[in-house]
Amino acid sequence: MTTQKENDEAGQSVCIYSRNSVQVRRLRSLQTRSGRDATGLYLIEGVRHLAEAMKHCVRIETLVVAPKLLENPLGKKLVRQLRIAGTPCYSLTPEIYHSLSQAEEPQGVAAVVRQRWEKLEHIRPSHKLCWTAVEAVQSAGNLGTMIRTSEAVGGAGVLLIGNATDPYNPATVRASMGAIFAQRFVRAEVEAFLAWKQRHQVTLVGTSPSATLDYHAVTYPKCSMLLMGSEKKGLSDVLQQACDLLVKIPMVGQVDSLNLGVATSVMLYELFNQRRASRANPR
Amino acid sequence: MTTQKENDEAGQSVCIYSRNSVQVRRLRSLQTRSGRDATGLYLIEGVRHLAEAMKHCVRIETLVVAPKLLENPLGKKLVRQLRIAGTPCYSLTPEIYHSLSQAEEPQGVAAVVRQRWEKLEHIRPSHKLCWTAVEAVQSAGNLGTMIRTSEAVGGAGVLLIGNATDPYNPATVRASMGAIFAQRFVRAEVEAFLAWKQRHQVTLVGTSPSATLDYHAVTYPKCSMLLMGSEKKGLSDVLQQACDLLVKIPMVGQVDSLNLGVATSVMLYELFNQRRASRANPR
Repeated sequence: MTTQKENDEAGQSVCIYSRNSVQVRRLRSLQTRSGRDATGLYLIEGVRHLAEAMKHCVRIETLVVAPKLLENPLGKKLVRQLRIAGTPCYSLTPEIYHSLSQAEEPQGVAAVVRQRWEKLEHIRPSHKLCWTAVEAVQSAGNLGTMIRTSEAVGGAGVLLIGNATDPYNPATVRASMGAIFAQRFVRAEVEAFLAWKQRHQVTLVGTSPSATLDYHAVTYPKCSMLLMGSEKKGLSDVLQQACDLLVKIPMVGQVDSLNLGVATSVMLYELFNQRRASRANPR
Repeated sequence: MTTQKENDEAGQSVCIYSRNSVQVRRLRSLQTRSGRDATGLYLIEGVRHLAEAMKHCVRIETLVVAPKLLENPLGKKLVRQLRIAGTPCYSLTPEIYHSLSQAEEPQGVAAVVRQRWEKLEHIRPSHKLCWTAVEAVQSAGNLGTMIRTSEAVGGAGVLLIGNATDPYNPATVRASMGAIFAQRFVRAEVEAFLAWKQRHQVTLVGTSPSATLDYHAVTYPKCSMLLMGSEKKGLSDVLQQACDLLVKIPMVGQVDSLNLGVATSVMLYELFNQRRASRANPR
């Protein structure tokens, strides 16, 4: 994202006055999937997310500041810290910043961050609570909520099956409330995922409204992995058949499903509560 | 929403060709809180929501159709049924419909529906699972998710404390996935709510990150009511102090809170699971 010239100016601002400058077009491209995929970068926006990123020692590739908009004292302090540390910085006019921002009330600070991906072959079923695998989640917000709860219960990370879903979508990043910086991410095709599952003898736990097992009546083995499908279609047949345990979350009212972020979280808290109980009363 | 003239034409369409017609301005006003409050009406959009409304025998005040956009066979069938039953109908051009619609891919059918509110003095702590009370929820989507889960676990309905939150916001209606038509709604000021709680000897269960009781270690009495605060601030001091049980949902990762819809759902499923267990093993 940074050119040699900009790196030479590390710690100094590059002032940008045109919406059509190379820099602004690059920043704008990070709001699209193709732009993120091509660069391996993503955008975070707002003081809170910048603070979270720095708390997690995430390397900021480029700081993006609209000095006239940035009034938040913590935001100003973080920007000062990063500039002293030599982080390249784009300084934007309020108009250009507004044209880039997706926030309702832009705070005048954003940052370009490098995506973190791990390879499936380097992943082990975790000593942490569990991995959560997802197939084709449609709502970026739902995925962010799932990442947030996975972090809350001490989950290892999120394994994305297939290419449909991008955890570095700005709406996902926002909904994760900082968990995006703490959780681990892996992407794998179905076949590779199933081979990995077999090799590591993972107990794959899927949910389905047609399952007969009640999620709350099952004792989940330590080496479990949660697998969630898409909002509309649930799990594909091939992945349902690969599940070692297929459970349902019972419902008694006149709705036919739960929100996907909720269903994932109810499952994760069940696994978490069982793990806590087994630690409190080891056999 | 309908004039006498339109009622006389029940079953017939009023064709609307101007974005600035009285009818279109009235429809547009229902996307605002003040417009909904002034009329006691709200808008639902899309085939799925119309089907859910009809399944719940909700009275449709006015049907809103863009015939050139409506291709869905079920949608066409529902519109036919409603028109035969004499429901007043506005027929819009695609352009006018698009100007009203909040859907990404408008299906060409919407409906004006009357809000349902009950008075606090008519409400009893339910024989159903429990009521969920909420204070100043900020995200319309979160509120919709809470309504959806409340319906899923057999909750009675949602009690809104204060005036901050409108369950008939279009984003809430969408996120409720039809539960808006099944759940009951009450609005009350703090003082009236606390007097009601006292009178009915309800066990008020609130959540707080600073609570010491683990939500999963508590046995909730039958006459419990869940109370949730806002996303940013949680419960106000006065409501925290009114709680009979203040519990926390434990977290072990590097996030400081759960999504509000998730936290509510994790609590509701805990209450639901305890109720199911006590029914299976009555003392």
